[in-house]
Amino acid sequence: MPVLVMKFGGTSVANLDRIKRAAKRIGVEVAKGYDVIVIVSAMSGKTNELVGWVNETSPLFDAREYDAVVSSGENVTAGLMALTLQEMNVPARSWQGWQVPVMTTSAHSQARIEDIPPANIMAKFDEGMKVAVVAGFQGISPEGRITTLGRGGSDTTAVAFAAAFGAERCDIYTDVDGVYTTDPRICEKARKLDKIAFEEMLELASLGAKVLQTRSVELAMRYKVKLRVLSSFEEQSDEAGTLVCDEEEIMESNVVSGVAYSRDEAKMTLVSVADRPGIASIIFGKLSDAGVNVDMIVQNISDEGRTDMTFSLPTDQVGRAEKAMNEIKGQELNYEELVTDLDVCKVSVVGIGMRSQSGVAAKMFKVLSDEGINIKVITTSEIKISVLVDRKYMELAVQALHDAFELEKAA
Amino acid sequence: MPVLVMKFGGTSVANLDRIKRAAKRIGVEVAKGYDVIVIVSAMSGKTNELVGWVNETSPLFDAREYDAVVSSGENVTAGLMALTLQEMNVPARSWQGWQVPVMTTSAHSQARIEDIPPANIMAKFDEGMKVAVVAGFQGISPEGRITTLGRGGSDTTAVAFAAAFGAERCDIYTDVDGVYTTDPRICEKARKLDKIAFEEMLELASLGAKVLQTRSVELAMRYKVKLRVLSSFEEQSDEAGTLVCDEEEIMESNVVSGVAYSRDEAKMTLVSVADRPGIASIIFGKLSDAGVNVDMIVQNISDEGRTDMTFSLPTDQVGRAEKAMNEIKGQELNYEELVTDLDVCKVSVVGIGMRSQSGVAAKMFKVLSDEGINIKVITTSEIKISVLVDRKYMELAVQALHDAFELEKAA
Repeated sequence: MPVLVMKFGGTSVANLDRIKRAAKRIGVEVAKGYDVIVIVSAMSGKTNELVGWVNETSPLFDAREYDAVVSSGENVTAGLMALTLQEMNVPARSWQGWQVPVMTTSAHSQARIEDIPPANIMAKFDEGMKVAVVAGFQGISPEGRITTLGRGGSDTTAVAFAAAFGAERCDIYTDVDGVYTTDPRICEKARKLDKIAFEEMLELASLGAKVLQTRSVELAMRYKVKLRVLSSFEEQSDEAGTLVCDEEEIMESNVVSGVAYSRDEAKMTLVSVADRPGIASIIFGKLSDAGVNVDMIVQNISDEGRTDMTFSLPTDQVGRAEKAMNEIKGQELNYEELVTDLDVCKVSVVGIGMRSQSGVAAKMFKVLSDEGINIKVITTSEIKISVLVDRKYMELAVQALHDAFELEKAA
Repeated sequence: MPVLVMKFGGTSVANLDRIKRAAKRIGVEVAKGYDVIVIVSAMSGKTNELVGWVNETSPLFDAREYDAVVSSGENVTAGLMALTLQEMNVPARSWQGWQVPVMTTSAHSQARIEDIPPANIMAKFDEGMKVAVVAGFQGISPEGRITTLGRGGSDTTAVAFAAAFGAERCDIYTDVDGVYTTDPRICEKARKLDKIAFEEMLELASLGAKVLQTRSVELAMRYKVKLRVLSSFEEQSDEAGTLVCDEEEIMESNVVSGVAYSRDEAKMTLVSVADRPGIASIIFGKLSDAGVNVDMIVQNISDEGRTDMTFSLPTDQVGRAEKAMNEIKGQELNYEELVTDLDVCKVSVVGIGMRSQSGVAAKMFKVLSDEGINIKVITTSEIKISVLVDRKYMELAVQALHDAFELEKAA
């Protein structure tokens, strides 16, 4: 039998009625002849409750105990889903991570899946079981302790199962009906994409689109898992949602596929740093040691042996970054001033079409300039251009770019 | 190091503050030099919530999935308790049933513990861990599925660990401060017992005293586990609570140790049954097949080849019993009438002193007679006398018997 993986997130299994609705969807796929592996999250709110208890009990918690506590929400949903399917006369059973087993590293609370031997579940499929309901987000370490994969880890669980079982497709059921050209809440012309390439999805995910966990997209790309994002709140056909796939499968596409944004950006500038070899290594080495995730970097043209160094980072890491820079101010880094700007945001355009078509950056800059939006920092990759602008221009920038690249029209 | 087992019930770990209070008690025992095994229940209310979800999802649930869902509450408490102890600098870790492993039968939702190999936990004690926090009520079947032991099963988990680890004692922390001569809520002279024999505790537990699960007392008796019941809500000395122990350890005791009662009793009478050999076997075989737990049985003296057969049973099994009796009325059982009396209760006196002292039954009957209480059914065992009386007399009967046997006075 061909295997299909279906993943249901927290809002899709938030209560018994929604679990029943999800079970009906599963029943439809079973009727088509699939052996189905269902990955479930905890009922929405449950994981936050458990995390809250752990944090209140022990602010610097032992991550092994954190994992033992926090993984329990998924176990509840898995059992309830199996029971719901049984009530519909669909042969099903639940599996906790250690029962499969989902073998992970020992990096508790952010473990990585190392292997998923399919033998145990396949044996049950051979005996007539139609659905294996697996608790997402969790696994077992080489030491036999329970691990978790980090927030949103159930997406990664789903893709890893699809890879391990050679699944025909991995359907991610969520509370949106697919991947959009941009966030429909800030741009009403946003259009749902029928298909998007792995590379594009990866950029969008890491740029702040919250549809899929970045790691799950990486994994899908590496193992060529066909990934589909669709809504659990609507009747769905085989063509519903957005298919995340190899770019070869996308016949026609716009040069730009989507516009992403991120509010949680800050900009820091070290004013008048000595411009000598190794200075960047000192600055960014120190920031890295302090656990700061630097994103964009700009170095001004040198003026009389001194330069300005500007970089962007997540707003919640500003305190850490300031502390780290102050520590080396006196010693190695003889900068004049440290200027922090919290009123910035990042706006990006993404598209595999950029590889073959030039002029995208120039067009982007002109659109922003025409709207009177000043660009503070720029970074580019092969399929992405990101700019840092004042936060007050965020909606305007997204809408203007969406219009200019005509994203409301399909290719 | 000597091993101590401490068990905390649902109300003793109902929230983070209570978990902290329990952890302090554990710290006291660790400071005395014990290696401690802590058995925890789910936070109070959690198991009921999970059971509710299962029942709503699937009234005739697959018990394997029931167990997978319902066991999760204990896992949460175990992790939180381990974290709380770590915060107090007590080396601790949590263990789920399958990690120990607590090996049980496959009788899901009412599994029996078959073996608890101590090697894994002992190895951690040897490495310096002071407290193993074990999720109570759960285990793993030979098939690798999660099992549960039935409601109140954490008491049994605690006693089984005490037996497997040769623990010096098994302390059951609960919301009462010990075992009383009777229920203090209906008899203000009720006195806490310092010691009680296993056999007496077993009778009291099965007669409705809710302090300990019956099976845990059986197990303690078989393996000679010293069992102590005490309150988690008071400061406790080494002599606090009630010690359940071998009768040899009790130097002095009253003839009667306690008075128990049960409200949930019903009486049924089959009027004018043919009095021939095998008739009792037909009646009680049929009731047993229907899952009715018959308690007391009385057969009247035969009159012209016919007799009345009276028995007591839990009130919630009356429907089942009536159905079963109706089914065989026409065929084998030619009784005239089936009379059900729901307004009865059972009152019992228990004491190992009865073995050596006669006249307890006579005294009991006289006390009740003096109060004008009519006895409907009587059963006796070596250390117990139970009577069925009208429910309206329950409090009066308990108080009168407590007075007559002078239970307010220590031996």
